[in-house]
Amino acid sequence: MSRPITCIGAGVIGGGWAAYFLARGFDVVAWDPAPDAEARLRRTVDAAWPALTELGLDDGADRSRLRVAASLAEACAEAAFVQESAPEDLELKRGLLADLVAATGPDTIVASSTSGFPMTDMATEAADPSRLVVGHPFNPPYLIPLVEVAGGEATAPTVVKEAAEFYRSIGKSVIEMDRELPGFVANRLQEALWREALHMVANGEATVEQIDTAITEGPGLRWPVHGPCLTFHLAGGEGGMAHMLDHFGPSLKAPWTRLGAPELTGELRDAMVRGTTDEAGARSFADLVAERDRAVIAIRRAVEGARAG
Amino acid sequence: MSRPITCIGAGVIGGGWAAYFLARGFDVVAWDPAPDAEARLRRTVDAAWPALTELGLDDGADRSRLRVAASLAEACAEAAFVQESAPEDLELKRGLLADLVAATGPDTIVASSTSGFPMTDMATEAADPSRLVVGHPFNPPYLIPLVEVAGGEATAPTVVKEAAEFYRSIGKSVIEMDRELPGFVANRLQEALWREALHMVANGEATVEQIDTAITEGPGLRWPVHGPCLTFHLAGGEGGMAHMLDHFGPSLKAPWTRLGAPELTGELRDAMVRGTTDEAGARSFADLVAERDRAVIAIRRAVEGARAG
Repeated sequence: MSRPITCIGAGVIGGGWAAYFLARGFDVVAWDPAPDAEARLRRTVDAAWPALTELGLDDGADRSRLRVAASLAEACAEAAFVQESAPEDLELKRGLLADLVAATGPDTIVASSTSGFPMTDMATEAADPSRLVVGHPFNPPYLIPLVEVAGGEATAPTVVKEAAEFYRSIGKSVIEMDRELPGFVANRLQEALWREALHMVANGEATVEQIDTAITEGPGLRWPVHGPCLTFHLAGGEGGMAHMLDHFGPSLKAPWTRLGAPELTGELRDAMVRGTTDEAGARSFADLVAERDRAVIAIRRAVEGARAG
Repeated sequence: MSRPITCIGAGVIGGGWAAYFLARGFDVVAWDPAPDAEARLRRTVDAAWPALTELGLDDGADRSRLRVAASLAEACAEAAFVQESAPEDLELKRGLLADLVAATGPDTIVASSTSGFPMTDMATEAADPSRLVVGHPFNPPYLIPLVEVAGGEATAPTVVKEAAEFYRSIGKSVIEMDRELPGFVANRLQEALWREALHMVANGEATVEQIDTAITEGPGLRWPVHGPCLTFHLAGGEGGMAHMLDHFGPSLKAPWTRLGAPELTGELRDAMVRGTTDEAGARSFADLVAERDRAVIAIRRAVEGARAG
């Protein structure tokens, strides 16, 4: 791709994307209406560069290949791909995405970093909504691999596929959603935990520091290796997910969180067991335990090392 | 302590505790009514031993110092401390804890690994409930540092302090709760995420594998270093938690999860900002970003290494 990637928005997410695209060897053109946009972008890119260098820069990766345009039209003129990371405001996104579609060529994909708006809701003012897609990253976009890709009702299916393929080609881990869901997958999960935390602080049940400690010293040490489902599978001992659901099923009725649980139907139970078994694949229970143990030890040391500087 | 630690229950948690106490150089006496209890316990201890050895064994640590007793009374006869890890069944726990109190001396603390029952609900049949306390670990107890300590209405405050001190003295990270709450702190948070995951599978919104990927490739990579609150603080850029709450406040009303959010009052906002600032302490925003970046890189490498074997 010799045409540049266009990054709209100079905040934490927009700047993080710019840094990531630069590290992958692209030219990046950025735009943001704020007067201090260029200074903020360069500060974010500079802060990210040591981490990106540590992980390995692609051929041609160079911070000087970032250009800040004077207008949206100038930023979009030659764009191969547009990543929009404006504030989370539906009206603002609607107008901005319409402008981005108007300013780009008919083959240019315009992806939004929105944290939760379905594209169908954001695409209402665009002349050609077929090129609009959600490409939702996680902070910082230059380090966290996940990107959730989802189209709206008017998005061309090929655009969803191409966006997913583009992100994969630059090293991202992509979840391609086949339906629109506010908050997508990861924010649905993360937000449930976050809201429970807010309730606990609001009710004096735990302090901010206890909440963070509960995660960093507890389940947070398991999640990077196996995620919640495989983790739960291992907590069941050799009986795995099936044993856990049968054993802890009654706890689903207990007030362990403000979130009510779904009915644990035979169908849901089987879907969880089957999904977990599929995911484990060829790894035996003992393999998974050994993998988790190696990972938790390494993660604990990684965190200790990072905290020590 | 020359008297042994008593572990009640030969499941994943009971066996994991036994392995941890052995690695800390204690004699351990275990009991479980199941006929294959000894074989299961020794299998769990053997599986945990490489990880415990890697982390470092204390003086005198020896797997042969595990003895499986023929009865609850024999297991408790000389107990310095009892860790109960029976199945999560309230009636069973009530009877068992009463038996454990009856079988131990007046200076012996009896701690329950319960995942969520308040001690007040479990202590109803004990002759002396003052020695009963919750000491809730996370799986696997031999690797995850967190232990949540909470007393019931009849628990002596000194017992809560002594239990917390004992766990700290053997290398655990302790959250001492000053009130009873079903699910304590970590399970309240973890369970909210878990229930959202079950809802998503029940509704065909995401697969088990997509849910695990969303966490392992996404927010799960940040949680071991900073927890949800400090993570959110950094996502706010230099404006931190205050900016995030002001910016994403409206998203609290959005259906990003089935869990309703609390009203974001000025009081709650300020409590979150103050708590996060206190937790950050002397670390500047740039310090925290650098710490997170070092940690995420190291965590990614740790997980890759563990998966590769």
